[in-house]
Amino acid sequence: MDWQPENRRALARRLTRILNAPPTDALCGLAGLESGTAVRIGVTGPPGAGKSTLICRLAEQRLADARQIGILAIDPTSPISRGSLLGDRIRMESIAQHAGVYVRSLPTRRTHDGLCDNAADLLLTMEAFGFDDILLETVGVGQTDFAVRILVDTVILVLYPESGDTIQAMKAGILETADVLVVNKADLPGAQKIKTEVEAIMRRRNKPGDWQPPVVMASAAEGTGIGDLDDAINRHGAWLQDHRNATAIRRERTKYLVQSLIGRRVAELLDEAPPDLLAGDLQDAHDAVLRQLLDTAPQSR
Amino acid sequence: MDWQPENRRALARRLTRILNAPPTDALCGLAGLESGTAVRIGVTGPPGAGKSTLICRLAEQRLADARQIGILAIDPTSPISRGSLLGDRIRMESIAQHAGVYVRSLPTRRTHDGLCDNAADLLLTMEAFGFDDILLETVGVGQTDFAVRILVDTVILVLYPESGDTIQAMKAGILETADVLVVNKADLPGAQKIKTEVEAIMRRRNKPGDWQPPVVMASAAEGTGIGDLDDAINRHGAWLQDHRNATAIRRERTKYLVQSLIGRRVAELLDEAPPDLLAGDLQDAHDAVLRQLLDTAPQSR
Repeated sequence: MDWQPENRRALARRLTRILNAPPTDALCGLAGLESGTAVRIGVTGPPGAGKSTLICRLAEQRLADARQIGILAIDPTSPISRGSLLGDRIRMESIAQHAGVYVRSLPTRRTHDGLCDNAADLLLTMEAFGFDDILLETVGVGQTDFAVRILVDTVILVLYPESGDTIQAMKAGILETADVLVVNKADLPGAQKIKTEVEAIMRRRNKPGDWQPPVVMASAAEGTGIGDLDDAINRHGAWLQDHRNATAIRRERTKYLVQSLIGRRVAELLDEAPPDLLAGDLQDAHDAVLRQLLDTAPQSR
Repeated sequence: MDWQPENRRALARRLTRILNAPPTDALCGLAGLESGTAVRIGVTGPPGAGKSTLICRLAEQRLADARQIGILAIDPTSPISRGSLLGDRIRMESIAQHAGVYVRSLPTRRTHDGLCDNAADLLLTMEAFGFDDILLETVGVGQTDFAVRILVDTVILVLYPESGDTIQAMKAGILETADVLVVNKADLPGAQKIKTEVEAIMRRRNKPGDWQPPVVMASAAEGTGIGDLDDAINRHGAWLQDHRNATAIRRERTKYLVQSLIGRRVAELLDEAPPDLLAGDLQDAHDAVLRQLLDTAPQSR
């Protein structure tokens, strides 16, 4: 079906409800952890890499195959003002007008893993609404960003020539979690150098039989390299058909979900704790939170 | 006392033991949460901002007052290889030779908050060893980095002219947690523009009676602006004498510690969980981890 206004509104409401669901309600919908009716594509990289523009171009490319595409764009939120940055979203406005595309901006809130609350449930909901592709954009530098890998099929890491030292700092981290690498703004000086560097790192790390992550040169602004990126995503998808370990994926997602649900419950309990408890003995505060955690645990339904 | 080889070795061993202490042992040493015998200075900012070089210059500056300075430099660690990046540390080698300075590199491991395990205990240990200043370096972009603010007295955010879009992305986050801002590499084009932008943001956000974070122009490589930075730190320290809310600080630290200890315990329990449990029903896995969390909770000593 096309994204008529009434469907868009129903989806928007559903996503808002899930995004805001407290952790005690968040266990209910997760029976189908590895359902996988959609292609889930994570797009990550440092700020300024051009992820939003690249996602627009990629969505246009994949729409040529008459696909319905959902874009979930996770925005960093201030720990103090809780205001989300909407600048990037404005860049997506043109693609958001397309009948086959749905765009939603999601705040990170208190999570430290680069995702938003209840991200797993949001992805399942998008699948239930019939999207063929789900593009999940996260801002990441290094180790804060590997949670996305747990929830998607293909991780695209977007780099760019000016990022220089950023890439140095990322080498040990996120490079290893990427399935496809994009050097965006490939018309700028230094693009080829980054490609060469990254390919050398990837070759060193790759083991025989592993997926060999391709490095795609692109310019989202100029619209070049998007076909190559699309091919790389499809090749990785085909490779996964033969190599996906559903049990291992389920284990990783369970670990991630249990960890994040308990973490969020602890944060809630600490926010609700009597001020005196928190200003007193650390062990007392710790024990009180643990007891409450068990007393208020969500029950099976 | 000076940092003779025997003291350095004893401190190094102690820090290693604390860094590697499991969460069940980590509650013991935290009676003096707000002890504060040292000036604790957090230095954060995006990769490539020149934090390490700036810390060296700042340490030299503050050594002129015959202080003993400890530098804890937190390095991002790969989630896969667990290898720490040591490039930045090499830049600190010259200052590390000084008898009044102790430098230690610490891996972030699995924490997502930009700190290492048991960071609070490590700071207390440094204080117990008699350091006057503790400089804690963390790599941060935006919201992953506000944990450092909870554990230190003064947060210095290091920006640089090329960081352009990075700063855009940081505006909503870490800018608000900084007590002193440094535009490093101030000899490069665009430095004054960043200063003007940042000052405008800070002015808009500041409330009467709040500390007004100064924006210092510096070049760590050229050695300029370091005296201004030192002055700014000292002025913030003097301001804190009159405005520090010890009870609120204790509450924030308790919240942070309880959250991170329970989070680490949950991660441990998930790592040790039988594979079948994790591949089965999510609710069962969640309940089993919660039960174990309580059964194996650290006891008061």
